[in-house]
Amino acid sequence: MSYHVPLADIRFTLKELAGLDGVLALPGYEEATPDLVDAVLRENARFVEQAIAPLNRAGDRRPASWRDGTVTTPPGYAETFRAYAQAGWQGLLHPPAWGGQGLPKLVAAVANENINSACLAFSLCPLLTDGVIEALLAVGSEALRETYVPNLVAGKWTGTMNLTEPQAGSDLAQVAMRAVPQQDGTYRLSGQKIFITYGEHDMAENIVHLVLARTPDAPAGVKGISLFVVPKYLPTADGAPGARNDVWCASLEDKLGIHGSPTAVLIYGDGKGEVGAGAVGHLVGEENRGLEYMFIMMNAARYAVGQQGVAVAERATQQAVAYARERVQGRAVEGSKGPVTIAHHPDVQRMLLTMRALTEGGRALSSVTAAAFDLAGHHPDAETRDRNRAFYEFMVPVVKGFCTESAVEVASLGVQVHGGMGYIEETGAAQHYRDARILPIYEGTTAIQANDLIGRKLLRDGGATARHLLQAMRETLDALQQAEATASAPDAAGLALMRVNLAQAMQAQQQALEFMARTGMGNVRAVFAGSVPFLMLTGVLAAGWQMARAAVACHRHLQDAGNSPTEWSPDFLRNKLATAIFYGAHILPRAAALSAAVQAGVVTDTCAKYSDIA
Amino acid sequence: MSYHVPLADIRFTLKELAGLDGVLALPGYEEATPDLVDAVLRENARFVEQAIAPLNRAGDRRPASWRDGTVTTPPGYAETFRAYAQAGWQGLLHPPAWGGQGLPKLVAAVANENINSACLAFSLCPLLTDGVIEALLAVGSEALRETYVPNLVAGKWTGTMNLTEPQAGSDLAQVAMRAVPQQDGTYRLSGQKIFITYGEHDMAENIVHLVLARTPDAPAGVKGISLFVVPKYLPTADGAPGARNDVWCASLEDKLGIHGSPTAVLIYGDGKGEVGAGAVGHLVGEENRGLEYMFIMMNAARYAVGQQGVAVAERATQQAVAYARERVQGRAVEGSKGPVTIAHHPDVQRMLLTMRALTEGGRALSSVTAAAFDLAGHHPDAETRDRNRAFYEFMVPVVKGFCTESAVEVASLGVQVHGGMGYIEETGAAQHYRDARILPIYEGTTAIQANDLIGRKLLRDGGATARHLLQAMRETLDALQQAEATASAPDAAGLALMRVNLAQAMQAQQQALEFMARTGMGNVRAVFAGSVPFLMLTGVLAAGWQMARAAVACHRHLQDAGNSPTEWSPDFLRNKLATAIFYGAHILPRAAALSAAVQAGVVTDTCAKYSDIA
Repeated sequence: MSYHVPLADIRFTLKELAGLDGVLALPGYEEATPDLVDAVLRENARFVEQAIAPLNRAGDRRPASWRDGTVTTPPGYAETFRAYAQAGWQGLLHPPAWGGQGLPKLVAAVANENINSACLAFSLCPLLTDGVIEALLAVGSEALRETYVPNLVAGKWTGTMNLTEPQAGSDLAQVAMRAVPQQDGTYRLSGQKIFITYGEHDMAENIVHLVLARTPDAPAGVKGISLFVVPKYLPTADGAPGARNDVWCASLEDKLGIHGSPTAVLIYGDGKGEVGAGAVGHLVGEENRGLEYMFIMMNAARYAVGQQGVAVAERATQQAVAYARERVQGRAVEGSKGPVTIAHHPDVQRMLLTMRALTEGGRALSSVTAAAFDLAGHHPDAETRDRNRAFYEFMVPVVKGFCTESAVEVASLGVQVHGGMGYIEETGAAQHYRDARILPIYEGTTAIQANDLIGRKLLRDGGATARHLLQAMRETLDALQQAEATASAPDAAGLALMRVNLAQAMQAQQQALEFMARTGMGNVRAVFAGSVPFLMLTGVLAAGWQMARAAVACHRHLQDAGNSPTEWSPDFLRNKLATAIFYGAHILPRAAALSAAVQAGVVTDTCAKYSDIA
Repeated sequence: MSYHVPLADIRFTLKELAGLDGVLALPGYEEATPDLVDAVLRENARFVEQAIAPLNRAGDRRPASWRDGTVTTPPGYAETFRAYAQAGWQGLLHPPAWGGQGLPKLVAAVANENINSACLAFSLCPLLTDGVIEALLAVGSEALRETYVPNLVAGKWTGTMNLTEPQAGSDLAQVAMRAVPQQDGTYRLSGQKIFITYGEHDMAENIVHLVLARTPDAPAGVKGISLFVVPKYLPTADGAPGARNDVWCASLEDKLGIHGSPTAVLIYGDGKGEVGAGAVGHLVGEENRGLEYMFIMMNAARYAVGQQGVAVAERATQQAVAYARERVQGRAVEGSKGPVTIAHHPDVQRMLLTMRALTEGGRALSSVTAAAFDLAGHHPDAETRDRNRAFYEFMVPVVKGFCTESAVEVASLGVQVHGGMGYIEETGAAQHYRDARILPIYEGTTAIQANDLIGRKLLRDGGATARHLLQAMRETLDALQQAEATASAPDAAGLALMRVNLAQAMQAQQQALEFMARTGMGNVRAVFAGSVPFLMLTGVLAAGWQMARAAVACHRHLQDAGNSPTEWSPDFLRNKLATAIFYGAHILPRAAALSAAVQAGVVTDTCAKYSDIA
């Protein structure tokens, strides 16, 4: 089925929740006028719907394939990537000085959400290329930047991240790839990397690998890892792809989903290229600081994957809603004459509203997080910058963990809405269920995100960010109460329930925080026994807070509609208010159950100890 | 990876929770001695592990295939089914008079759980054959029984259920297949059926289709559906497969999972057989009572699918535990010298214990439900029979809905435990995730189960069964309190938490029941808006109740171990107690969140009304 960019919800989220106008007014974004942003979002929608969305099914049914070291991507991928590059989409976020458009993250992020919705497997190539560009701009030498960045921003070349090895997944201390320094200042790399997304393909004229490796005298563990650029073809003096480097794709993985995206095993240093034995690489930054550099990019990459969660959830939701509106089956539960569409059945409505609530809640949370990034980088006031940086860094693991776990739930509900048809691959619902399952795993599993949230983000400022958040939520509680006072009966009941449930979720979060503070370093295993429940609790609450703000805004605009024309149609506002209140009624109550799991940390750890698991 | 029948947990569940000894002492089960049952379970384990488990991967990678109307099952399926039939496994549950062994459902059910764990796709063939046998024994004429039942019980022939048509999925009122009566008392059937599991295959010499169809003068809707037997080959006078009937496999579906199982589109009445135009069928029972007959079998089939949920969860859990114990990655969170297996990480322990808790909780619930079936059929006291029948019928939709939804959650966690390797098909974790997804759909979606639970089972006796249940749970609360009083510190804390959380879950259930009673027919949509949350709440609570009983039993045996030898090893008891307490700490708190969703029914219905979904 076709995919439509949810432009109204995106614009509402940016303007009413994420403060788009304020972001566009920041120093450095002078050229990003509201009109330009509107035009970019409209043109993005057009391109995404017409050019990228049709790739999604074809790539799933005809996966990327390997033969004798070369990889053929699914039909249409290569042409579409060229069109994508030529239209300038790869450069959306990157500095104008390097050929990009320098838009705020808030705007680039939703454009990326749409690309991911249209075809997750395709969009991984630009996503990873973004990461390589950011890394080179952040820590690469001037020479490296000039050689690689313009070609990457232009989408002539693409990028990859080479972290994982068979024995080094989440634990990068185990990286074993060797990099031996040469007389000419280059290094020669040898070893094996696995799970390299777009590690080999036919969509661009060169592939730029960022590779973690160890020099001969490097210390053991994470402090001995360096970062290298290794191109598939060594650039000539005039910047064209030259000699074939010694890096080879040995095979592709047969994956559960994202079939269109080639996941490569790469062998470095087989000696078959045009450069002798060992892949020629350039050191990025200084030796032994590779992991530190990767962490610089980590927040951006994790944020991007969180948004992939929103993207897949959106697409799965659209498909399920469309099916439910068409499929006639059964009679109305309250009794009626004839058969009805399944969209009329209460449980199908519950499933569709759950899908929407999680999707729109995730979009609101990730958009507010992107706005904080822009404020952290551009606001003239230092204290505002710091506060927003802390918020952004606190929320990145939550966006990554919560939005991707939600995507799996939403895609699974999407199959369920389709009934038996959902289990047939032809329908397409099953693809989202398969595709979504990678999201809570790559770029750090949900447990890794939770460790980051608890071990680094929460403890770093002694819980100050978490307390600021609760304070901001209290203001939303007040706003809900005011809205309730002026609402008519059904809305008032919904807003009241949302207020009660938001307050209870805040209390649940508070109790979880107190448990962790109380238990702390004295029983660190008991704290980490609830790390993922705590992350999910934080996500449920933070997205629910945004949905509460959305409810307040919808109510205000509906009240004002009689007096002054609003940008949002009454239909849109009613629909959005319904989704927001549903979030309050069905999703927010999960917070208490998650908090109970966190607070059971000591018992949980005892269970694990007495079981035969470890 | 290989699969091991969890014999210790099965025996513990049967004896300590489901009252195996009492069931075996019932009139009619005189030959099912404890020794015989032990021997059956051991032999079942051997056969399942050695013969069936190896089929699982091969069938997933090489699905059943169609060519010119004939279907080839995956390598090994046909030979294994013959061995299965010859060993008498198809007859486990069926009456000795028809060649079966007449074991209690309680025993046959766990044997079937193991077969399903070993290979879900394979086991669908015997599962459906069981259904056809039961239907013919319940409502078939003596002639039909004698022609078909012995061959089906012997596994020489297999059976199918033909309900679904393209426009008639959950809504059987839409069935359109025609059945025209002939002079000789037979009928000629024509039309199309879809989603027919094992509708065509090469594993047996004949296939016996049970088909829903309409006679020419039948009333519209569900009151005009009749049930027919349509064999692939018409039996000759001496009972051998004779003339080829006019039913044909037009194609197989390309499914998300259970690839080994052929899901057929069947065309009746193409005129290509050896019988002229129209498939020859025999009426089962009386005309227009087909749906009623299907309902007789429905409880058994739904129960069997619920147990498939336990089965897939068990296999996914075993695989994840084995991987977690082997995979070395990262260091201990409390700080330690070297790398550890991931089974040492708190969040991996949380995931594995969640998987175990849901699996063992589901097994306990389904076993107790099976015992009630046996008591309902065989107990000398009429009141005991009635009470157990009510319990069985109340619990069947819960076993089906809760255990299958849990299977999807468990299989998804299984992928997550494997990290990136879980996303690679070679690992096998992804197969469980794909296979499990059909379980909440077929034999009635979770919403259909929830409608049955609320609309039929709960209301029928004015909530008496639900109240009896809560009373029985109160006794378990008392037992927990007594256990707590005699327990040492860590166990006492765990038992206390379980008691508190069980009491809270009971209260949550009580409040949900009160909301539904209060809202009732005045706003039936508001009640059904929370139907699935209510079913899941009931499942969480009922399985948690059984896990609480398990905790009490483990504690008692551990206390007694010093005095008298117990059947269960201390290691087993410790491990089981840990899983039970974990269920109390992490799963039972979900009840409150689900109850909140139920109680939000009026608001939920308003949300649906104001949204643009329907």
